[in-house]
Amino acid sequence: MNVSQKLISSHLLDGKMLPGEEIALKIDQTLTQDATGTMVMLELEAMNIDRVKTEVSVQYVDHNLLQADFRNADDHIFLRSAARKFGIWYSRAGNGVSHPVHMERFGIPGKSLAGSDSHTPAAGSLGMLALGAGGLDVAFAMAGEPLYLKMPSVLGVRLTGRLPDWVSAKDVILEMLRRYDVKGCRGMIVEYYGPGLEDLSAMDRHVIANMGTELGATTTVFPSDQETRRFLRSQDRESDWVELLADEGASYDLEDEIDLSSLEPLIACPSSPGKVVRVREVEGLDIAQAVVGSSANPGIRDFWIVGEILGGKTVHPAVSLDVNPTSRQVIQNLIATKSFFNLFSAGARFHQAGCMGCIGMGQAPATGKISLRTVPRNFPGRSGTLDDKVYLCSPETAAASALTGRITDPRDLEQRYGITYKRYQRPEKEIINTEMLLAPPGDGEQVSLEKGPNIKTFPKFDELPREAEVPVLLKMGDNISTDEIMKAGVKVLALRSNIPEISRWAYTGIDETFYERALEARERFGGHIVVAAENYAQGSSREHAAIAPRYLGQVAVMAKSYARLGWQNLVNFGIMPFEFVHPADYDTIEEGDIIRLENISGNLQNKRNQVAHNHTKGLQYELTNRLSDRQVRVVIAGGVINYFSMPSEDPKTSGTTSES
Amino acid sequence: MNVSQKLISSHLLDGKMLPGEEIALKIDQTLTQDATGTMVMLELEAMNIDRVKTEVSVQYVDHNLLQADFRNADDHIFLRSAARKFGIWYSRAGNGVSHPVHMERFGIPGKSLAGSDSHTPAAGSLGMLALGAGGLDVAFAMAGEPLYLKMPSVLGVRLTGRLPDWVSAKDVILEMLRRYDVKGCRGMIVEYYGPGLEDLSAMDRHVIANMGTELGATTTVFPSDQETRRFLRSQDRESDWVELLADEGASYDLEDEIDLSSLEPLIACPSSPGKVVRVREVEGLDIAQAVVGSSANPGIRDFWIVGEILGGKTVHPAVSLDVNPTSRQVIQNLIATKSFFNLFSAGARFHQAGCMGCIGMGQAPATGKISLRTVPRNFPGRSGTLDDKVYLCSPETAAASALTGRITDPRDLEQRYGITYKRYQRPEKEIINTEMLLAPPGDGEQVSLEKGPNIKTFPKFDELPREAEVPVLLKMGDNISTDEIMKAGVKVLALRSNIPEISRWAYTGIDETFYERALEARERFGGHIVVAAENYAQGSSREHAAIAPRYLGQVAVMAKSYARLGWQNLVNFGIMPFEFVHPADYDTIEEGDIIRLENISGNLQNKRNQVAHNHTKGLQYELTNRLSDRQVRVVIAGGVINYFSMPSEDPKTSGTTSES
Repeated sequence: MNVSQKLISSHLLDGKMLPGEEIALKIDQTLTQDATGTMVMLELEAMNIDRVKTEVSVQYVDHNLLQADFRNADDHIFLRSAARKFGIWYSRAGNGVSHPVHMERFGIPGKSLAGSDSHTPAAGSLGMLALGAGGLDVAFAMAGEPLYLKMPSVLGVRLTGRLPDWVSAKDVILEMLRRYDVKGCRGMIVEYYGPGLEDLSAMDRHVIANMGTELGATTTVFPSDQETRRFLRSQDRESDWVELLADEGASYDLEDEIDLSSLEPLIACPSSPGKVVRVREVEGLDIAQAVVGSSANPGIRDFWIVGEILGGKTVHPAVSLDVNPTSRQVIQNLIATKSFFNLFSAGARFHQAGCMGCIGMGQAPATGKISLRTVPRNFPGRSGTLDDKVYLCSPETAAASALTGRITDPRDLEQRYGITYKRYQRPEKEIINTEMLLAPPGDGEQVSLEKGPNIKTFPKFDELPREAEVPVLLKMGDNISTDEIMKAGVKVLALRSNIPEISRWAYTGIDETFYERALEARERFGGHIVVAAENYAQGSSREHAAIAPRYLGQVAVMAKSYARLGWQNLVNFGIMPFEFVHPADYDTIEEGDIIRLENISGNLQNKRNQVAHNHTKGLQYELTNRLSDRQVRVVIAGGVINYFSMPSEDPKTSGTTSES
Repeated sequence: MNVSQKLISSHLLDGKMLPGEEIALKIDQTLTQDATGTMVMLELEAMNIDRVKTEVSVQYVDHNLLQADFRNADDHIFLRSAARKFGIWYSRAGNGVSHPVHMERFGIPGKSLAGSDSHTPAAGSLGMLALGAGGLDVAFAMAGEPLYLKMPSVLGVRLTGRLPDWVSAKDVILEMLRRYDVKGCRGMIVEYYGPGLEDLSAMDRHVIANMGTELGATTTVFPSDQETRRFLRSQDRESDWVELLADEGASYDLEDEIDLSSLEPLIACPSSPGKVVRVREVEGLDIAQAVVGSSANPGIRDFWIVGEILGGKTVHPAVSLDVNPTSRQVIQNLIATKSFFNLFSAGARFHQAGCMGCIGMGQAPATGKISLRTVPRNFPGRSGTLDDKVYLCSPETAAASALTGRITDPRDLEQRYGITYKRYQRPEKEIINTEMLLAPPGDGEQVSLEKGPNIKTFPKFDELPREAEVPVLLKMGDNISTDEIMKAGVKVLALRSNIPEISRWAYTGIDETFYERALEARERFGGHIVVAAENYAQGSSREHAAIAPRYLGQVAVMAKSYARLGWQNLVNFGIMPFEFVHPADYDTIEEGDIIRLENISGNLQNKRNQVAHNHTKGLQYELTNRLSDRQVRVVIAGGVINYFSMPSEDPKTSGTTSES
C-alpha cells in the first residue's frame, strides 16, 4: 500500500476503499479557527455535547485579529469559554496560524485530522490524513462521529533531484498548479515520494501540502520519514514520531514526476492560483506591495531568507513589505537570528502572528497596483481590493521584487546585486513557545459559555410538520447560488454567530422584501416554501444559506434539481428538498400560491411520492426526493442537531452527518 | 524671561506678548499625519504652492495602517507623491508615530513647530514651541504664513525630588490631570522647571508634554538642558542642540509644584483623562486587555520595563496584551535587549509601529470588559467599542495588571511576586533608523500627484456673488454642532479627501433630504442659504462642516450667533456668516422662503449692514457681521484658498489665515 492507503485503512470505519465509493473515517484530531469555530461551538452546545471525544481538538484564533469593534474581542472570549467547556485546547489570539501551530505542537504522523478550514491538508506534511470539512462535519467529528467522504484516487508524484539556489518549496507547488490548474486534482489525494524528498524539510512539505487545496485535491500526503523525525525532535516531540512509508513497490492510481533540479522561480498571475508562468515572463512590472507569510510559507526559513536578502538594504520606496509571522514560536526563533533585525531595518511592516492579509484582514493593495504575495490564493477581491492584481510567489521572489520595486527573478540578485544565496541552518532544538496554548480543564461542567451581545444560542428548530399549508414566498430560476441566498461580505460575516440577525439578509440578493414576508408567513401560516428551477443552492458550502431560511420558517424547497452541497445542507438543517417529478409543473406556480402538503413524514418513511396541492391554482404536483434512510430520519427530526440530541434506540455512531 | 516667553519672542512676527492678545508666530517646522494630511496636501495644491517655505516639513503615516480597502493604500501613495512635489519629508507607513519620530529625527530646541495633530506639543519636551492646529492653519504655515493665536499665560510647574520605584513619567502627567482636569489649563503654556527635571529623561518629558493637550493647554514647554543634549547625542544629532533655559529668577503668570518623590501610581478612570484616582482605589477589578504604546508612552524604556516585568512569565489567560511600538527605531533598540524577546514569550500581541489602538484602529475591547491603556485619551467609544471601559495608566501599572488579570498597583509586584524594579540603562548611542524617512527630491516640478479614485482635487470655488436670490434650505435651532452638519465615523471619515462624496453627508443628522435639495437649489437658484439660532457650528473644529455646505452652493448663513471656530471656518471657505440685527426676525422665516440679497460685497467693503428681502413672506431683515477687513477680503474672494492664490497688490504674509 502507499501512504495514503495506509492512512485510510487504519481509520476506515465503513465503506470500501474503491475510488468514488463512500467511506467513513475515524477522526483522531480536529482543528477549528475563529471564522468557522464560533458556529461549531454553538452547534456543540445545541447538540448537548459535554466533552469532545477526539484525542485532541484545538480551537485557533487566527483569522480575525483586527478588533475593529467589540464583536471580534467578544468572539475570542466566547471561543475560550467554549474550549474550556468542551475540552478543547485554545490557541490564543496572536499565537499564530492554525496550520503551522498545529504542526509544531500537535501533529502526529499516522493520525487523522479534520479541520473547518480548507488548508487543513497542510498537516499531510507530517504523514497525517488531514481533511478540510464544513463546520457541522467537524462538530460531529468532535462528538465522536465519523467523517464521510468519497474514497479518493491517489496521485503519486515522484520527486527527484535537488532544488537549485533561489528556488524553493513554493515553486514546487506552483509547478503542480502549472500542470494541473485549480481543478485538476479533484477527487484525489496527492502523495509525494521519491529521492527528492530528502531536500525538502518538514516545513517545505507543509508549503506543498497546504496549497494542494488549490489543486482541488481532497488532501496531500507525505511519508513520515527521518526528516519528520528530525522536525519532531526539534519540537521536543520525538516521542510522537512513528515511521510511515509506502510499501516497497507500492503503486498509485495516477503517476507524475518532478525533477526538482529543473525548476525555476514561478509565479501565479491574477487572479487564480492556477495561472502559473515563469517569473521571467512577467519580470519588470512595477509592484507596490510584497506580502510575506501565511500558511503557504509559514516556516522560520521563509522569513529568514527574506531578511537575508534584504540585510543592509532598504525596501524600494514605492513598495510596502508586509510581514505576517505565522506563529509566536516562529517569531522567537527568528529573533535569535540576525535576519529578524534585518527585516526591521530594511523597512518591513511587521504584523501580528495570524492570517492577516492572506484573507483580506487588512493590507488591501492600492488601486491598480500589483501586490506580490506568498499566500495560497489570489482570487479576485480576496485581498480586500475589488479589482486587485495579486501574484503568488516564493519568499525569494517576493524579497527580490520588494528590493527592486518590480517583479524580479531572484536569481538576478546574485548576478546584478552580488547577493549570494544562503541556506537556512535549522537549529537542533527550536525555541518552543507553548505559553499561548491553553489546555482545557479536566472538567468543563462548571464552565459557562460567555456570549457577547452578537453571539446567540443556536435556535431550537421544530420537527418537520406532519402537514403544512404555506405560501410560496419566492419563485427562482436556474443556478441560484448560496451567495444569493445568503450574501457574504464583512457586514454579514460579522453576524455568523447570530442567526436571528443574519437571517435578515436571507435572499436579499433576490428580493429585499423576503425577510418581512417570511416573518409574516411564519406568523400566519407557520412557515413558507420556495420554488426553484435547476441546480438550486450551488456555489460555496455556506451553511447559513440553509440555517437562515430555516430560522425564517422554510418548511421545504420545491425545485427541478439541487447542487450537492446545498442539498445536503438543507437536509442537515431540516428543510425538505423536494423535486418535481414533472418539471413542467414548475411553470404553473406563482409567488403567493398556497401549497398544501399532507402526511409528509409518513410519505417519507414509506418512500412514497408527496402530492402538493396548489390551492390557489387548483392544481396538484407530484414531488419526489433523493434522501437516504438516515437522511429521512434527520429531516423528520428537524435537522441533524435534533437528530443527534434525540434519545434514540441505536447509538448515533451508526448515523452519518454529511457526505461532503 | 521663562522658556515659553523666550520661544515666543524669538518667533513673534506681530502682536504683543500680553496674555489674551493675538500674536502672529513664525513657524520653522511642520508635521502632518495621514488622517489630516491628505486634505492639507489638497489645499496646498489648490493654493498653487510649488514648494513649502518652512525649514522642515514632515508628512507622517501613522493613523491608519490597517488597509481594510484600497483607499488606505491609495492615501499613502498620494501622500508620498505630494511630499515629493511640495518638498516635504515622507515618513513611510509603519515607520512610526509622528511625535516620537519627529523628536528622534527632526526636533531642534528653540524652533517652532506647527502640527495638524493635537498632540504636537509633545515636541515641547526638547525645548520647542510646538503647537497643534487645524489642517488649513498648517497648510498656511507650510506656505510661509504665520500662525495666529492668543498669547497664552504661562503656568510654571516646579518639579522637585525623584520618582519612587514603580512610578514613572505617566504618573506625573496624571497627577497634573488630577489637579487641573481636562479644561484647567486652557489658554496656558505649561512650563516645567526645577531640580526634579534631572530625574526625567527627554522621553519622559515627551510623555508629560504629549498629554499636556489633555489639560487643555496651548502647549507644554521644557527647557533644553544637558539631558536634551544627551538625548540628541544618542540620536547622533548633538550638533542640533542649543541650550534654552529660563533666566535666573524668571517668573510665571501662575505657579505650581510637584514633589516627584511623593507620587504613587495613578490611573484615569472611564471615560475622561481627568478622572484620575490612585491605582489603589480601583485595584482588583478584572481586566481583559492591556494596551502599551502610543505617543503618550513612546520611549524604548516604556516597552522595556514591560518586558522586564513579564520576563519568564505569561500574560494572564483572560488578558490580551497589545503592544504598539511607536517607531521602527524603538523596535530596533528593543531587539537589542532581552526585554523584546520577553514580550513575545510572555504572550504580547505585537502590532505595527503606529497609533493603532490608541485611535481605535483595531484593538477594540470586548463588551463590558475593562481595557487598561498607556494612551493619552479614554473618551467614550474612542477605542472602537461604544460602551467601553478604558483606564489610562503607566506601563508599569499596565504590565502588572496584565500579569495578574486585574487592576494592580505595580508596587505589589515587588511585595507579592518578588519582582525588583529596574531602571533602564540608556545606550550612549541609539541604533538609528532613517531608512523609512524619505527626503524630498530637490525639485518637485516633475512630480505629479497620484490620486486614487477616492482622492479628488479640492473644488474650485467662485467668488462671493454680488447678489443672490436663493431659498432657505434649512431652519435650525440653537447649538447646532459640526457633528450634525457633517457627521464623523469611519464611513464618512474615509471620504475626507473626496469633497463631492463627503458632501452627500452634509446635514444628514438634521435632514436626510438636504443633499438632493441642495443640488436642486444650486441648479435652479445658483445656491442656498441656511438659517440657525444661537451658537451655530459649535463643537469640533471639523473643516468639512464648512467645505461640504460650500460645495453644495451655500452662499450664506443667517444666524443669531456663531461658535468661534465654526464661524472662522465659514469665512475661511467663503460662506458669509450673517447675524440678525433683530433676533426676532428669526421667528418669521420658514424653510423654502426665497431670500434676496443685493450688493453683498459692496456692503461688506463699506461696512454697511445687509438687507435681506424675504420674497415669500414680503418681509425685510437687517443683517450684520463681525468680519475683520482681512476677512472681508477673504470672503469676497471666495475663501482663503482663493485669497491666497490671487495675484495681489501686497504680499500675503500680511494676511492672517485663522485665529484658532
